[in-house]
Amino acid sequence: MKKSVFYHAGCSVCVNAENEIVDLLGQENVEVVHLGEEKSRIPEAEGLDIKSVPALITPSGGVLHINFGASMEDLKA
Amino acid sequence: MKKSVFYHAGCSVCVNAENEIVDLLGQENVEVVHLGEEKSRIPEAEGLDIKSVPALITPSGGVLHINFGASMEDLKA
Repeated sequence: MKKSVFYHAGCSVCVNAENEIVDLLGQENVEVVHLGEEKSRIPEAEGLDIKSVPALITPSGGVLHINFGASMEDLKA
Repeated sequence: MKKSVFYHAGCSVCVNAENEIVDLLGQENVEVVHLGEEKSRIPEAEGLDIKSVPALITPSGGVLHINFGASMEDLKA
């Protein structure tokens, strides 16, 4: 199975969602990207139509915005 | 595995999210509840801290609000 990618920014909302998603999908099926630590990947996330974090990109390319931690604009500040 | 429960209201945002979630978790692992058709279950959803649909309740009881279709208040209208 192609991996899902979970983008987050380390906030508490993000970490809670990450735990739930990893539990649901299995650690081996999710790549976790911390945009606060890897700001160079913000353009990649925006290119995938991510508007806020946490967000999950499914193997089919769908965007699931999960709860609300921070907007992409907040991450660039 | 205990099932996850996906609450939605039939809107296009809900249906897209439902397809993604069912793909990710497998049909057999998700109970789907259409709150527009089963309004009697709205109090159950509110009791689980669901504020808007679509939303997923994980087997551990966590609430994941996924994208945004409609608020619970909208469903009662």
